[in-house]
Amino acid sequence: MIVVSGSRPTGKLHLGHFMTIGKWLEFQNKADKSYFFVADWHALTSHRDDVNTIESSTLDLVRHYLAMGVDPKKSTIFVQSAIKEHAELYLLFSMLVSTTRLERMPTFKDMKENIKDKDLSTLGFLGYPVLQAADILTYMGDTVPVGEDQIYHVEFTREIARKFNNLYEEIFPEPEAYVASVPKLPGTDGRKMSKSYGNSIIIETEEKDMSKQIMQMKTDPARMRRTDPGDPEKCPVWDFHKAFTNSEEEKNWVINGCKTAEIGCIQCKKVLFKNMKEQLEPVWNNLKNISNDDAKKIILDGNEKARSVAEQTLKRVRNAMKLRW
Amino acid sequence: MIVVSGSRPTGKLHLGHFMTIGKWLEFQNKADKSYFFVADWHALTSHRDDVNTIESSTLDLVRHYLAMGVDPKKSTIFVQSAIKEHAELYLLFSMLVSTTRLERMPTFKDMKENIKDKDLSTLGFLGYPVLQAADILTYMGDTVPVGEDQIYHVEFTREIARKFNNLYEEIFPEPEAYVASVPKLPGTDGRKMSKSYGNSIIIETEEKDMSKQIMQMKTDPARMRRTDPGDPEKCPVWDFHKAFTNSEEEKNWVINGCKTAEIGCIQCKKVLFKNMKEQLEPVWNNLKNISNDDAKKIILDGNEKARSVAEQTLKRVRNAMKLRW
Ligand code: SF4
Ligand code: SF4
Repeated sequence: MIVVSGSRPTGKLHLGHFMTIGKWLEFQNKADKSYFFVADWHALTSHRDDVNTIESSTLDLVRHYLAMGVDPKKSTIFVQSAIKEHAELYLLFSMLVSTTRLERMPTFKDMKENIKDKDLSTLGFLGYPVLQAADILTYMGDTVPVGEDQIYHVEFTREIARKFNNLYEEIFPEPEAYVASVPKLPGTDGRKMSKSYGNSIIIETEEKDMSKQIMQMKTDPARMRRTDPGDPEKCPVWDFHKAFTNSEEEKNWVINGCKTAEIGCIQCKKVLFKNMKEQLEPVWNNLKNISNDDAKKIILDGNEKARSVAEQTLKRVRNAMKLRW
Repeated sequence: MIVVSGSRPTGKLHLGHFMTIGKWLEFQNKADKSYFFVADWHALTSHRDDVNTIESSTLDLVRHYLAMGVDPKKSTIFVQSAIKEHAELYLLFSMLVSTTRLERMPTFKDMKENIKDKDLSTLGFLGYPVLQAADILTYMGDTVPVGEDQIYHVEFTREIARKFNNLYEEIFPEPEAYVASVPKLPGTDGRKMSKSYGNSIIIETEEKDMSKQIMQMKTDPARMRRTDPGDPEKCPVWDFHKAFTNSEEEKNWVINGCKTAEIGCIQCKKVLFKNMKEQLEPVWNNLKNISNDDAKKIILDGNEKARSVAEQTLKRVRNAMKLRW
């Protein structure tokens, strides 16, 4: 099993990242090889006007990878733009895919509709899934842990692999997507967690500030008064419980207590934050001990490893396509 | 003056190539630096299903460059796919250009309409002009000898250079197109010279076979009989005279002789072929002495030179975009 996944360095890491990277750890232990990278070229599609953010977020992302337990002894941690082979494979794959296929991609339509403050009419944005396919197949990745919205991209990667294998030589695996079973975390206001809504919870936040954010979270609007019963399914706090509260007992306590108004939202949130803290505290402590320089060293080392694999793959690709220069 | 130009290795070289490469020679002597490359990645847009052709044509193209007088001491002769920096710059530029701008490109519409037997719906075909911009700007090219249909691509390269310079750092020149003043050669049947029409004249053809091709060329249909007067403007043979017959006296002899039916088409073509042979014979002789291995050596040497320039450019680009890995 070869696992490949990456994150875009586009600002501070929030709890959504915490969930995603948490999922990676399971794969790290199961996989024969695992590659976790910083997708800085991908970040350009939305942040080409703000490359300073990309630069600083790259190191920040790797600090978080390490703090959360991505282990450089088990996994290769690297930066996409350091491995030029991704760009070469992207170019070669771009000969194999039709633009209409790319325009029909659900993520393409979604993002175009939802993101109005960025210029998403670029060739780079249209080619995003092609670059993702190159990211995965450069390492012969066969297993891709992804969020639900990325399933299509892995399906598309399979298409490209198949097309290449048919046209030239049986080189690439057809990777499978593994969707994280962790429920999606909403923002503190119940909407989608997004920097532009100001409703994200940043991982690297002082304990008391994060606690405050939780205490101020929106809840089921039906609970106007303490004595009004509520419905956890209508409350973003419950989504957080599903992600952070492991004990079934506590979960039942929330469900029953909320529905019967036996517990108040403040109580409910306090239990949530206790459970969040339990999971976040070790990461906070680790982050204090991991400097940007530490991250840099890990990256440079990982880049070398990634590069040597990428070189081998591209050598095979060039051979198959008779581009032997 | 830095000159950059290339040809796609998609089959035997015909007289259209002879004209184009002939034009390069003028620039080779004027330029401070000149780069003439084999655009094998570009060839994939139309020949992805026929990579054997690309491979063999690559060497053939360079044999012709050399036979016609491209001088490796003055010009850098290299193969595009050997210089991975083109692919990296292509990827970076793809973040700066809109797909609608690319779809509006006259060459895009033209080729889509005219070429029905190839799959031109690919991302690679849409991105063709972006890769061309990368080809040129990797070497800081400021002067691009092109055919008329390529003017738009150079104009587009200027746009990309401007956009990059504004957004990041003043790195790139805004290159100018120089349109070859040589008239376009039609095929032997008067239609556009094209492999698919079987009306091309291949440079490396035995003298007697080429002579036969000329003698069989279509002429002004008005000259049914020897005694019918004709109009050179309606005759593809005259287009060839414009390209190969340098003497004004001979040209006037054709115009007047044709219009008054004083000369016959056979006479006219014999003079044409005499003049063609004068220009082609040295090339034929050179070709006999240039092996594929010779071409390969020149390429490997040129690739190294090109690569070191490309590396410098990309280092500057990555610095400007804060992608310093
Ligand atoms: S008790 Fe908990 S789940 Fe129910 S509305 Fe309040 S915060 Fe939400
Ligand atoms: S005389 Fe020459 S120019 Fe006139 S029709 Fe014949 S071939 Fe053409």
